[in-house]
Formats: sequence, C-alpha cells, structure tokens
Amino acid sequence: MSPKITTELLKQLRHVMKSPKYVQEPVQAYIVPSGDAHQSEYIAPCDCRRAFISGFDGSAGTAIVTEQHAAMWTDGRYFLQAAHQMDNNWTLMKMGLKDTPTHCDWLVSVLPEGSKVGVDPFIIPADQWKRMSRTLRSAGHDLVPVKENLIDIIWTDCPQRPCKPLIMLELSYTGVSWRDKIVALRSKMAERKVLWFVVTALDEVAWLFNLRGSDVEYNPVFFAYAVIGMNTIRLFIDGDRMMDPAVREHLQLDSTLEPEFKIQVMPYGSILSELQAVGAGLSPKEKVWLSDKASYALTEAIPKAYRYLTPYTPICIAKAVKNASETEGMRRAHIKDAVALCELFNWLEKEVPKGTVTEIIAADKAEEFRSQQKDFVELSFATISSTGPNGAIIHYKPVPETNRTLSVNEIYLLDSGAQYKDGTTDVTRTMHFGTPSAYEKECFTYVLKGHIAVSAAIFPNGTKGHLLDSFARSALWDCGLDYLHGTGHGVGSFLNVHEGPCGISYKTFADEPLEAGMIVSDEPGYYEDGSFGVRIENVVLVIPAETKYNFKNRGSLTFEPLTLVPIQTKMIDVNLLTQKECNWVNDYHQKCREVIGAELERQSRHEALRWLIRETEPLIRVQ
Amino acid sequence: MSPKITTELLKQLRHVMKSPKYVQEPVQAYIVPSGDAHQSEYIAPCDCRRAFISGFDGSAGTAIVTEQHAAMWTDGRYFLQAAHQMDNNWTLMKMGLKDTPTHCDWLVSVLPEGSKVGVDPFIIPADQWKRMSRTLRSAGHDLVPVKENLIDIIWTDCPQRPCKPLIMLELSYTGVSWRDKIVALRSKMAERKVLWFVVTALDEVAWLFNLRGSDVEYNPVFFAYAVIGMNTIRLFIDGDRMMDPAVREHLQLDSTLEPEFKIQVMPYGSILSELQAVGAGLSPKEKVWLSDKASYALTEAIPKAYRYLTPYTPICIAKAVKNASETEGMRRAHIKDAVALCELFNWLEKEVPKGTVTEIIAADKAEEFRSQQKDFVELSFATISSTGPNGAIIHYKPVPETNRTLSVNEIYLLDSGAQYKDGTTDVTRTMHFGTPSAYEKECFTYVLKGHIAVSAAIFPNGTKGHLLDSFARSALWDCGLDYLHGTGHGVGSFLNVHEGPCGISYKTFADEPLEAGMIVSDEPGYYEDGSFGVRIENVVLVIPAETKYNFKNRGSLTFEPLTLVPIQTKMIDVNLLTQKECNWVNDYHQKCREVIGAELERQSRHEALRWLIRETEPLIRVQ
Repeated sequence: MSPKITTELLKQLRHVMKSPKYVQEPVQAYIVPSGDAHQSEYIAPCDCRRAFISGFDGSAGTAIVTEQHAAMWTDGRYFLQAAHQMDNNWTLMKMGLKDTPTHCDWLVSVLPEGSKVGVDPFIIPADQWKRMSRTLRSAGHDLVPVKENLIDIIWTDCPQRPCKPLIMLELSYTGVSWRDKIVALRSKMAERKVLWFVVTALDEVAWLFNLRGSDVEYNPVFFAYAVIGMNTIRLFIDGDRMMDPAVREHLQLDSTLEPEFKIQVMPYGSILSELQAVGAGLSPKEKVWLSDKASYALTEAIPKAYRYLTPYTPICIAKAVKNASETEGMRRAHIKDAVALCELFNWLEKEVPKGTVTEIIAADKAEEFRSQQKDFVELSFATISSTGPNGAIIHYKPVPETNRTLSVNEIYLLDSGAQYKDGTTDVTRTMHFGTPSAYEKECFTYVLKGHIAVSAAIFPNGTKGHLLDSFARSALWDCGLDYLHGTGHGVGSFLNVHEGPCGISYKTFADEPLEAGMIVSDEPGYYEDGSFGVRIENVVLVIPAETKYNFKNRGSLTFEPLTLVPIQTKMIDVNLLTQKECNWVNDYHQKCREVIGAELERQSRHEALRWLIRETEPLIRVQ
Repeated sequence: MSPKITTELLKQLRHVMKSPKYVQEPVQAYIVPSGDAHQSEYIAPCDCRRAFISGFDGSAGTAIVTEQHAAMWTDGRYFLQAAHQMDNNWTLMKMGLKDTPTHCDWLVSVLPEGSKVGVDPFIIPADQWKRMSRTLRSAGHDLVPVKENLIDIIWTDCPQRPCKPLIMLELSYTGVSWRDKIVALRSKMAERKVLWFVVTALDEVAWLFNLRGSDVEYNPVFFAYAVIGMNTIRLFIDGDRMMDPAVREHLQLDSTLEPEFKIQVMPYGSILSELQAVGAGLSPKEKVWLSDKASYALTEAIPKAYRYLTPYTPICIAKAVKNASETEGMRRAHIKDAVALCELFNWLEKEVPKGTVTEIIAADKAEEFRSQQKDFVELSFATISSTGPNGAIIHYKPVPETNRTLSVNEIYLLDSGAQYKDGTTDVTRTMHFGTPSAYEKECFTYVLKGHIAVSAAIFPNGTKGHLLDSFARSALWDCGLDYLHGTGHGVGSFLNVHEGPCGISYKTFADEPLEAGMIVSDEPGYYEDGSFGVRIENVVLVIPAETKYNFKNRGSLTFEPLTLVPIQTKMIDVNLLTQKECNWVNDYHQKCREVIGAELERQSRHEALRWLIRETEPLIRVQ
C-alpha cells in the first residue's frame, strides 16, 4: 500500500479556498468530514471526498486543510492504515490518545487571528456545527458554510451519484407495514406535539417504507429523504425508480388511499427548498422534528424557534427493537451464515498448509460460500481477511499490495458478514492452522473471557451498554492489556451493519438503554502491532433473563448469541478459564452442533458437518 | 419522624412570589436548590432553605414551588426519608426512575403559558442556569434571577451565618506551602492564557491557603472566596478571623513579601462588586477562569466574552491527587479510626445482647472512641447508625422518633467517619450480633463480591471511574439485585468527605480519569425496604499496579484499602466466594491484624485487640 501523493491536490484545494468564484470570502481552513448529506457511515464513491483528498479510505476520519497544514483525525482502528495511506503532506491525529488535540484546539493553535473555517453545510451534522462554531467563535474565529463543496470542484473525475433499483420487503420480513409504521410515527409526533418529522438518515427512510436499495455498497439503502406531516407523506427520491410497477404497488402510489397515506414523490434535490417552504409556513407553536445529527443545511431551513431536535429519532429507536418477524429473520440469516463459514474454515484447514491461499482468496471464498445461501444479497461490509501482522490493523481490508499468504505459522483473523433478505450478519473468528504459541493462546483466551463476560452478563432493564464495556476488558486489564475500540455496535435487520442508538462502548455518546429485542455485536479483541490480532465477535440478541430475585420489579436482561460459529478450541488455554466460562463454551458449541449441524445436514454439506462436529468437541478443564 | 407541616409557609412563599416588594414581576414558580452560594453539598444552618420550606433535610434535593404545586426531586438514597419528612403539600419526584420528569419537563407540564420561573442567582450554578434557561425558553417560559432570596424573607428566625476561628495546617500535613500552590495555580493559568482565577468552592479556598475552618458541620471549611491574579491575591472573608496573629503569620500578612504573594483581605460580601470591577477592567483577550459550577451571579459578573469556564478547576484536580504527606496523613487517620471501630464493635458485641443499645447510643459511642484518638477534630458526616429496616434508608440518621434498639435479631449498619488533622475517614460495616439468616448472608456476600471486584480491579491509567461501577454490581445483577446509588466518591484530606472530580458511579458526569494518589470510597450495598440494609465501604487509594504486560506503555492502576477494619466473617457465605475472593478477604484481614493490631497494642487496648484477632481468623472455603 503506497500512500496517495496529494501535493498537487492540496495546492488546488488551497487555491479554491481563496477563490472568489467559489467562496464568498477566503477561508483559512476547510473541513472535509467523512459523511455524506445523510451522515452515513458507509458512503457512495461520489461522497468519498475525504479519501479523495487524503488517500485515507477508512470508514471514520475527518480531514482539515489550512494554508500551511493538512491533518487527519481518526480512531485506534485506523492508526496504521491511515499512516500507510497518507503521504507526508498529512499529519495523523490519533483520536483517543491523551495528547491528541481536538479539531478546534488544533485549528486555534495553527490559525492566524480572525480566521474563517469553511465546511459544506450539507455534510456537517447540526450538533457538530453548533459545538465547533461556538468553540471557534470563543477563540475569535468563524465557522462558515461554503455552499459549493470545494472538493467536488477539484475532483474532476468524480463518479455519479448512484440510483439503483429498489427492493420491496414483504410483511413476512418486516412484521409491520409501512402504513402502520407511519401511524406509529405520527402517534410519537402527537405525543411530542410536533407537526412534521424530517427523515434524513438513509436507513431510516428504508426502514420506514419497507424498501431497500443498493446505492451504497454493503448498506442496502437508497438516496432519499422523507418529510412526514400529520396528513402528508413526501418522499424525495431520484431516478425512474418510482416508475417500477412493483414499487408503485408497494407504496400504493396509484391506489385511492386516505389522503394521509398518499405519498407525494419529489426530486431528491428539492428537499432544501421544500423544507424551507415548510419552515416559512409555520405558525407559532408548530414544531418540526429533526435529528440533531441532520445536516446543518437542513436544520437551518427550519427557523430555530420551530425546531424540535433530539439525538435519536423515534424511527431510530423503533428500528433498533426488532419485532418477532425481524428476529426470526435474523436467526435464519445467522444459520445460513454459519453454514457458509463452516464450509470456509473446513476448506481453509485443507488449503492453507499448501501455501496457496492469500487473504484475498480467503475473502473471496467466504463470499462464494455465502452467496450460495438463500436470499443472499451482498456482503454487509468489506471483509477483513488478515493474517499475522495485518491482523493488528483493526479495520484492515486486503488489497494486492498488502495481500499476505495464510500459513500454518500465523494467526488468521476473519471479520466478515453478509446481507440476506432476512437479516444482516457480522462475525469474527480468529484461527490458527498450525500450532499457536503459548502467548497467542494466552491473549486469545483473555479475549474469549471478555467475550463471555459480556455475552453471559445479566443486568437490569434500562442499563446502558457502556456499563457493560468493562466486563469485556477485565481479563485483559488484569494482565496490563487492552484494545482501542468499543466492544459492540447495534446491527440492523437487512440494514446497516452498524446502527444506533445502542452499543457497548467505553464511549458514552451513542447509548440508549438496552431493551429486549435489540441486537448488538460482542467483539472484544487484542492487537499487537506488527505481530498479530485477535478478535472474537458474535451478534447477540437482548433477551429477558430469569433471575432468582427481581429488585424493584425492574426485570433483568441478558444476551442470546445469534451467531453460531465454533470458536477455535485449539486457541484456548483451558486452564485460564473458570469452570463457568468453560461451561459457556461447551454449551455454545453444543448449540452450534445442534442448530448448524441440522442445517448442514439439510444442505447435504457432509464434510463441513464433520468439521463442525470436530470443532465443537467439549473442552475439559483440569482442576 | 412526623412530617413538617408546610401549608402556612407555602402560602407565605406564594405570597412573596407575587409581591412587587420582593420580585420585579410575579414569578409563577420558584426553585429552591440544596446548595449555598458555593455550591457546597453540606451547608450551614442558615443555608438550609430547602429543608426549611419542605421539612426534607437530606443532603441532596431540589424543591420547586408553583402557585398550585410543590415538588421535591431527590435520589434513591433519600426516597424513604423524604417521604417521611414531607407533608401532603409535597409531591416526591424520584430521580433515576424511568417515568420521573426532569425539573423542566415538570415545570412545562404544570405552568401556564409564558410563565416566569424564579431562582436566587447566587444559589444556582451557572451551568445549571444555562441548561434550565434554554429548555424553559424553548417552551415559552423564562428563568429569571430573583435577587433577594424569597425563602430568607419568610424565614423569620433564620440563624446567622457562622464565622468560626481558623485552623492553620503546617507543611508536615499539607506537603506543599500555600505560596507554592499559588505558583502552581498561576502556571496553570498561564498555560490556559487566563489572567484571573476565581475560587468559589469552600474546600478549594481552604486547600489553597492550607487553612481549615468549622463554619459548616462535618466539613472543615470556612466562608470565603478568593480571586487570584497573576500578581495579586484577594481573599474575601468576614469576621475578626484575620486578626488572629497565628493566621496573620501563616498568611504572612504582615511580612514584607514580593507583591505577587501579598494577600489583600476583603469583606466576604464584596465579592460580587469586586468581580464586576475586574470584569469591567478587562481588555480584549483577557480571560477570567471560573468553574462552570460557580454561581450564576458571579459568572454573570464577568462579561461572556471574557469568561473561561471549565467543569473542574485546576485546584479541584490538584487537590484530588494526594501528595506523600497527605497520603501518609490519611494512612495515620485510618489506623486511628480503625482502633476506634475495633473498640466500638467489641463493646457492641458485649452490650447489644443486653437490649440497652440504641442507634443513637451506638453512634455516640463511636464518636466517643474516635474522639480519644490523636488529632481528632469532629465527625466527617452525620453517623448513619441503623438497625433492621432503618438500614434500608440509605442516608438514615437516627433521631429520637426513629431510634431503634440494636438486637441479636437484626442486621446493624454503621456508616461513619471522622475528621482528624491528618486525614478524613469514611467507613461502613454491616454486622449481625446474633445469627444472620441464609438470605441475609447471601445478600451480604454479593455486596462483598462487588466490593472486592472494585478494590482488586486492575485497569489502565486514564480510566474513568464510571467504567468500574458495574464490577461492583455484577454479582448482585446475576441474581436480579442492585442498589440505587453510586459505588464511590472522592474523599478529601482533612477536607470534605465527598469531593470531586473523580468517583465510581454509573452516572458519568463527575468523572475525571483516575490517577495514582487519588482517594475514593468503594461502597456497594443492597437495601430491602422495610427489612434491612447492607453496605461495605472502604476508603481506597489509587496506586500503580504491577502487571504481566504493559500495553502501549500506558501503565496500570489498582486500589489499596486505607480503611483497615474487619469485615464480619459471620455474615459471609463462604461458598459463594471464589478462591480468589476468599484470598482477598484473608489477605485483607491479615493486614488489619498486623497494622491495627500493632496500634491497639501500642495504645494498650488489649480487649479490642483480642476482638480484632478473633474477627480476622482466615476463612476456609470448602471446594
């Protein structure tokens, strides 16, 4: 992986930052966030502006370019990758380390007095604008909206915005019709006394209308906004997608419907002017509900007095709590996914010793096995297929320059998942195809203890995920080890593999209380730079827990693993496990045998079934 | 405990809320916070306005009175106490429960449109003013400062503000002279480019000048403010306390000092006008540093552009990290405190079966034994001496109406501590003087497991306390149990028994990273309303931990118990402990024997020594 040479691009960007043709007045700094106009985590190629200007293409990062400097902030997952992908024009700002300045602190330290800091108002979330604007102002600078995106100006071969066909999801998958979702949303709006709700996140639009798309790789979403009134529904979407008769029927566009369920279809680009019109027509006390993460541009379209901003929208919260149809779908998807992985690991076990399997070949093989499963749509994120030192690059993706051959001498870490029409998967297994060292087993076992501590945790109803994060780290901490990422994220139901509002992290910002029906990942790890990486990840469902007592009648919760893929027992130092942990592993493997074994049998995958049986032999702990 | 009858008082308050004599325009609601003008937790009798108007005298609570309603917000520690102390005029708002409205939500729900909500600007912290003001404004109401305190107007027999003599602390106690503290503070000010620092918290004034007082019961502080410039020191303090020659010498008031260490003494009441003068004299870019918890009145004295507000002041952070002299003092104080408690428990063991020991007698006896120890000053908080159902009232204080006799049939919970000139103590032990039931032992053992999980935790440098809170709850959670308070608080060094900025709580607001030298409490509990309470509390010192590995060279921390008082083994169900937990108890008791045993021997307290030896017999776990 050689870095992108950005000298010429930065020169061009610095030129347009001062050009009266593009900016009302020169800006001394320009911020290039990761997101798109919907604050998506995964973005379409046309929105990869930060990657274009810097070369760093990880999923999280913010670039800031001044006349003298270019700096990139990213988190622990990407320190190594960013350092590899960026040239010497860039300074890497390692978020989460003690001495790393914030965006604003850094700007204040490098900018001349009274500077203008520009940003595209469609790309920056309103809450972030507010914080940055306030901090910069208090230091004598100004955050200013730059209407035309300055990267787009210098990006001469920028790809077109995708506009792919839509997928309709029947009631058997979603459990609730879009009409009923609108009814529920309107009842939440009535509770809060708001007249309008603006849907800005792509997965929220998709969920609300029981539609899926493929405009963004890995995330089955499509570019659209929606504005829901108490009696109107406006869907902002481009292309001829609304000409598809199946879509028209799904949305009942040609039916004689009650007016409040009649969907008005409008061009994607007209959202700002339509929203400004809504804003201009409001009477006192009439409120418009937006996420505080909606773009600054859309938020500003509604006069301040009429805005009702919340960190989580009612759609975000409803979407996180999966109903019975969604949960059943997720279970089916995870069974199919496990079948594919049993096939893969069985295949790897035979092929790796031959020295012919590279990280890319292994990733492709994983996709091949997954694609054989019913209702497979696409992968849910870029497969992290990494061996040896590449395993320590937390969100590594193999490319020809880094592609390493799997061997019997190195740990192999595979973090992968898929979108099936009935659910989304995300699973990490760490394997050794030879004989792991005592130290590798030790580290693996600490990670496993953390994984089990979360998975088996019992906690009161209403507990926030951040209160569980330390359970995942305790065994590592005892030996002075740790990992620099959160322990888990929400997972969508045939939707984004990362979704809010819940998660398990030492960070406390995206953290609504856990509820039965929510689905999160449990993925502690340990990474030794230049050497190896270990991660064990299951997707788990929040379920009610039976407890001996029931304090204040609050009820308790725990997790049920949806992922049912063997955890390599060869990597476990059994003597570091407690009897309880040992039982957990054996019970888990027993369930893998039963559930996945039956499916392998049904699919006549006899060799993979034999592999599964072998890999799920009970552990025996010597007291 | 019969409730205070508040009908007449509320009538009077509602009258002055509308009287042009006291308010510029009528206020439809009046907020009575707990604190004083220094946002102290423990307050002088003249500042107990919330207790005066409502009858509820717990340490935390906010009263709001409207024309129609009177409501009191308090947390889980005080639900029972508040319910007992308040009459039917009051509605109890149980903070921390799901459906309890916030102050603002409640105000919005009960107030007529366009209401004024009044509050004393000296009593409300600036950060809270800001949040409330914003929320009320967005709902069409106004938060307004009412200069004259409306409670003081109707409180005809309000006691005088105390003004007691000062105590000077020599270098052997403080480790650092007040001059060196000023130098260190000015260097922090220079780092942040501020010219002035306003000291508003009473314990910060006391710590900075190495002085102590007794204006507030239990907290060795005195009413004062200080304003530190780069070349000036102003101390705002009343009374003839500055006439004491010893104080004059300590502060070098009559010496020929470099001008920047010359202390100007000014009247306590002149702080506002002096600060307004400072504010008026500022040039652009000159900043004044205040805590964001300073009163709204003082914060407003500095024009907004010149304010530099932080949640924690540099004094608060410096004060939290104890130096070697302070740590040694805390150790000495805890040894003396343990001697007193060994005497007490030995005495209780003999006396309780006679049926003559009440909660008050036990509390008095504890104070008597403590007062026999060297450098004893006073108690560090009101002793919680509670037996049976009273133990479930988390911050119970025995009064004649509730005073219960200790017996061999009930659990006894004693949470108590003292101020010694060399340190502050705070310890809780839960004992049974007969035969505890299996259920009582079970609950006690879960609490003990939680206590050990925190005390023995190893965690990376820079970890915030909230990440340790769940360790204390895990054993309780497993059985569906929990407790409705945080796990630990910072402890001052011959200062407030509760101090910031660190703690161990599921709440994340007062939570700077833990550092070696910080001192916190570790006090999980379990409470069964109407039945019993269990709490096990040690004060622990944050120390570096030795670990097998050292990830990213961050280093690790753990805790060392400063409290060395036996934990009643009779209450422990040994079979619920792991071998590791059992070893922890035995090691802890071994240390109690050695350290406290030697001191009991030295003080010729032979009977208490025999009790200690008996109570520290090793536990034996049957596998």
